[in-house]
Amino acid sequence: MKRDEDDRVPDLSQGPACPVPLPPDSHVVLGHGSGGRLTADLIARVFRPLLGNSFLAAGEDAAVLPLAELAGAGELALTTDTHVVTPLFFPGGDIGRLAVCGTVNDLAMMGARPRWLTAGFLLEEGLPLADLTAVVASMRDAAREADVLVVAGDTKVVERGALDRLAITTAGVGVIAPGAAARAARIVPGDAILVSGFLGDHGIAVLAARGQLAFRTEIRSDVAPLASLVAAMQATGADLHALRDPTRGGLAASLAELAAQSGTGFLVAETALPVRPEVASACEMLGFDPLHVANEGKLVAFVPAADADRVLAAMRAHPRGTDAKRIGMVTAEHPGRVLLETAIGGRRLVDVPAGELLPRIC
Amino acid sequence: MKRDEDDRVPDLSQGPACPVPLPPDSHVVLGHGSGGRLTADLIARVFRPLLGNSFLAAGEDAAVLPLAELAGAGELALTTDTHVVTPLFFPGGDIGRLAVCGTVNDLAMMGARPRWLTAGFLLEEGLPLADLTAVVASMRDAAREADVLVVAGDTKVVERGALDRLAITTAGVGVIAPGAAARAARIVPGDAILVSGFLGDHGIAVLAARGQLAFRTEIRSDVAPLASLVAAMQATGADLHALRDPTRGGLAASLAELAAQSGTGFLVAETALPVRPEVASACEMLGFDPLHVANEGKLVAFVPAADADRVLAAMRAHPRGTDAKRIGMVTAEHPGRVLLETAIGGRRLVDVPAGELLPRIC
Repeated sequence: MKRDEDDRVPDLSQGPACPVPLPPDSHVVLGHGSGGRLTADLIARVFRPLLGNSFLAAGEDAAVLPLAELAGAGELALTTDTHVVTPLFFPGGDIGRLAVCGTVNDLAMMGARPRWLTAGFLLEEGLPLADLTAVVASMRDAAREADVLVVAGDTKVVERGALDRLAITTAGVGVIAPGAAARAARIVPGDAILVSGFLGDHGIAVLAARGQLAFRTEIRSDVAPLASLVAAMQATGADLHALRDPTRGGLAASLAELAAQSGTGFLVAETALPVRPEVASACEMLGFDPLHVANEGKLVAFVPAADADRVLAAMRAHPRGTDAKRIGMVTAEHPGRVLLETAIGGRRLVDVPAGELLPRIC
Repeated sequence: MKRDEDDRVPDLSQGPACPVPLPPDSHVVLGHGSGGRLTADLIARVFRPLLGNSFLAAGEDAAVLPLAELAGAGELALTTDTHVVTPLFFPGGDIGRLAVCGTVNDLAMMGARPRWLTAGFLLEEGLPLADLTAVVASMRDAAREADVLVVAGDTKVVERGALDRLAITTAGVGVIAPGAAARAARIVPGDAILVSGFLGDHGIAVLAARGQLAFRTEIRSDVAPLASLVAAMQATGADLHALRDPTRGGLAASLAELAAQSGTGFLVAETALPVRPEVASACEMLGFDPLHVANEGKLVAFVPAADADRVLAAMRAHPRGTDAKRIGMVTAEHPGRVLLETAIGGRRLVDVPAGELLPRIC
């Protein structure tokens, strides 16, 4: 512990001070997660310049948020998501954008306005700092797009081989206006079922980025924050009974879960499901059902039938909902089940895959 | 997607329904993180029975929390921590207890009453379900002890070899009463510096559990929630200027950070530092400074000197503070630096390790 008086304790409150110079091509080392000088250096070099705000700059154990900002709100929404994806960067996004959008969207699906995020980084020793910087820059961009602040974070580093590069866990707090809470239990027979656009883009884009398709495709992930789309839908004055973003397990898993939770039945028209021809082809070749493929920038909405047209119009007027469609309705029959009306007029049960359909993609 | 009408979509709103029976000796498979039936099964078998509460039971994308519970509060505290530790179970605790206490304590250090937690689980394929269950049971116990609820969670599974067993990221929301906010910037010259008990127990206990000590020791980790200790200190009516839990980097890192953030100097008496003889011996043999070793159930407090005795008395009357001691004072001299007054009357600078002192222990 003995050191010359000339040595300086790093001033953690300052910006780009660099007590341990790291070349731009350097890599994550165990010390970056130690809580010591290298951690402070990583914060000063990567996290603060990209994500910095007054809450994060305080550098305390927790962000302190003024409750006055919640004046007039009805409820708080709180959620978390852990993100791992291979590859880290794919057409249309990366793990950083995914981590911000996943949590923002989970909040928006409750009818909340997302406000504050936290981010926990788990890094593998040896990860290029350039990759980490690119991921954090992408989080900054997605957070700006979603109008949220990353107010607290944490970084841990594990030995080489104890993790596949990088995992990010985001948690988020949102504010629900009085009467705006959307939830499964509010779904009732007669509700129209709307989706905000094409299904399966994210899953197929990630598979393509892995080189697991036998052909080339231009499909890009749809990963995007949906809070402003939800706000536009709320602005119609329609009562949004329930919202869900069909990520893991695809639209099939979301619908099955909502049918079970609400105790109602869903009847969905197969011909109404929006699927890009390229995604449909890829799914056919791979033996996948597009209903099972993950989305990261789409939502399914349950609204009173009388409101369906104006909600749909508001969705189509929003950049994240231009291809929105009405796909079905809620029934009192077959409670807890989702039936698909096929092109030839038959009906079959939409199932949920038991386990892993695809290698981890979201 | 075709299935017989007799097949049942699992009712995710129900408790212990087990659509895919798993023997008690089974292991985590990729499908447990897929968002499909196996995920629902894991929730029904492990998470809901152990952590269940009405918020979690809603099974929505985010927990919805009544703002009415915040009536009279001044501010919100929000924090996150990612946890990895080897071994998962060690004398005095495990990764589950660590994950709950780490986030609870970060909130308590802001003067907040911790209320709601989220938990993101990253699991390696092949992890014994018995281990996961034991970890989650430990989280339940720690959450009860800290009087917090785990209201939202997420589970992802990565391929065998892509993670060393298990990582848990917790985030937490706490409520700060008006005027109760503790923070570095409130530290002023004249403040007394108190610690709540023996230093270094956690780090040495984890090293011992790894078999990295050449001798046997009975040292147990101190991992514990500190919210009720902080509440007892607040109940004295004393103005708690700043609080910090000296985890990664030990007391040295916490003091250096607080000195830098507050722009004050700290003078600490080496002879006043509470270190168990067994911990001191272990540190001596390993060449560690106990000031650099992690704690997970201790705090350092900065209080006006006039309040120090009654705060110390309140700490000693609490089970988590029986060995609390006054260790030093805040000075206007040497701002940003922490000086240790040695047994023979000399002074030396307390430094912060640049990087990793010990393999990851918290």
